[in-house]
Amino acid sequence: MNGLSALDRVRVVLSRPSHPGNIGAVARAMKTMGLSRLWLVSPALFPDPVADARASGAGDVLASARVVGSLREALAGTVFAAALTARRRDLSLARRDPRAAAAELVQRLRDTSSEVALVFGNEASGLSNEELGLCALPVTIPANPAYASLNLGAAAQLMCYELRLAAMGEEAGTPFLPAEPLPEAATHEETEGFFAHLESSIVASGFLDPAKPRRLMPRLRRLFGRVRLEKEEIAILRGILSSFDAGVKNNRQSQ
Amino acid sequence: MNGLSALDRVRVVLSRPSHPGNIGAVARAMKTMGLSRLWLVSPALFPDPVADARASGAGDVLASARVVGSLREALAGTVFAAALTARRRDLSLARRDPRAAAAELVQRLRDTSSEVALVFGNEASGLSNEELGLCALPVTIPANPAYASLNLGAAAQLMCYELRLAAMGEEAGTPFLPAEPLPEAATHEETEGFFAHLESSIVASGFLDPAKPRRLMPRLRRLFGRVRLEKEEIAILRGILSSFDAGVKNNRQSQ
Repeated sequence: MNGLSALDRVRVVLSRPSHPGNIGAVARAMKTMGLSRLWLVSPALFPDPVADARASGAGDVLASARVVGSLREALAGTVFAAALTARRRDLSLARRDPRAAAAELVQRLRDTSSEVALVFGNEASGLSNEELGLCALPVTIPANPAYASLNLGAAAQLMCYELRLAAMGEEAGTPFLPAEPLPEAATHEETEGFFAHLESSIVASGFLDPAKPRRLMPRLRRLFGRVRLEKEEIAILRGILSSFDAGVKNNRQSQ
Repeated sequence: MNGLSALDRVRVVLSRPSHPGNIGAVARAMKTMGLSRLWLVSPALFPDPVADARASGAGDVLASARVVGSLREALAGTVFAAALTARRRDLSLARRDPRAAAAELVQRLRDTSSEVALVFGNEASGLSNEELGLCALPVTIPANPAYASLNLGAAAQLMCYELRLAAMGEEAGTPFLPAEPLPEAATHEETEGFFAHLESSIVASGFLDPAKPRRLMPRLRRLFGRVRLEKEEIAILRGILSSFDAGVKNNRQSQ
């Protein structure tokens, strides 16, 4: 498989974009770098002639854009998601710059035949903490600390450019698919299913007090987000949780 | 001299821009990457409220922009000029990609206290051959051959980003976000302590039958071995296991 053709498996997801002009600008930025799959989560205005105008020759990207109601829906079926975030947050330690993030996304494309996602938040408010929690890799563009406010289309242009360079590097260097296929990666839904199970198990065991969550789940998400969990591993982890659940449940019933 | 302060000596020159919105977008792109000197050669419309709106928080860059009548005037006093060109021309000089061009511009900034220029042509017609002839270094952005039409603001964002990275002294493969100390990694002993705890917990819960281990521990080791577990994460994971252990143990005692 050709390295650049893997860019067809990158979903660019815009969560709650306010301005149709920015949607058009992102479509244009994508197409200039060979990306084509645009997903829109609850856009304020779409379709819209302003988006069409700004898309210029990338109307086909707009025409095939998928509109959904939540980021979870937009990530369904993907195996890895990177999210742009300007702000320093508690979990900032795992952040990547665009070049490293592009390398990692292209590596994931190489390891699987599924899609990966590149997620951008609302122009003014960015991504919510909940949305960011759904994405394994926070990405921050190194910008002027006195004015770090990149336009959405400009940020997308920059990320798509780095993805194209990373994919071209793959094309020039190593073969794009490894000789031995890696075990199948868990999908977004499977990973989220595991997190939901984990949360309910540690609530039941008393380790997590929902009234005082102490950022426990975000920390566990960050931990498992650094692994590329495989389908079978999810099955094992959930099997382990179920075995603990049984003990905890019987214990409660017997008290 | 600080590498980033050298970006004050980069003139971004737009030759005959047609759309004031693009002038504003370029100003914003410049400021996000720490550039400030904008020169406009015979802009169709400037100043203009559309430019102000698109500049967002970079109104100061617009306010200090210099307007001149020819590219020669805009280049007066500079020691080196790079020019963006999408088209393949009969050029004696080898074209550079943005990364190599940025490295060369920053090298010139190091070698001199004068200014260098980064020149963009008209949105539709680009630079004339005469204008291109005034610039030492033609630069081409690697783009989708089927649609290479980057918006002017997006092209400027990309070039200013590469200039910022080059000025930060970024070398291939090294991270260029401000160094953030990584959380302390768990030691070998701590990691082994976790695996021993995990094994005893899943034996107690009944998930792992020591008589039929089914390669379960090697699989779990492989999973957690792919994460670089931190000290605090080990503490959390062992806390979770202990909470499950309590349920399982009480359950057994009560039976």
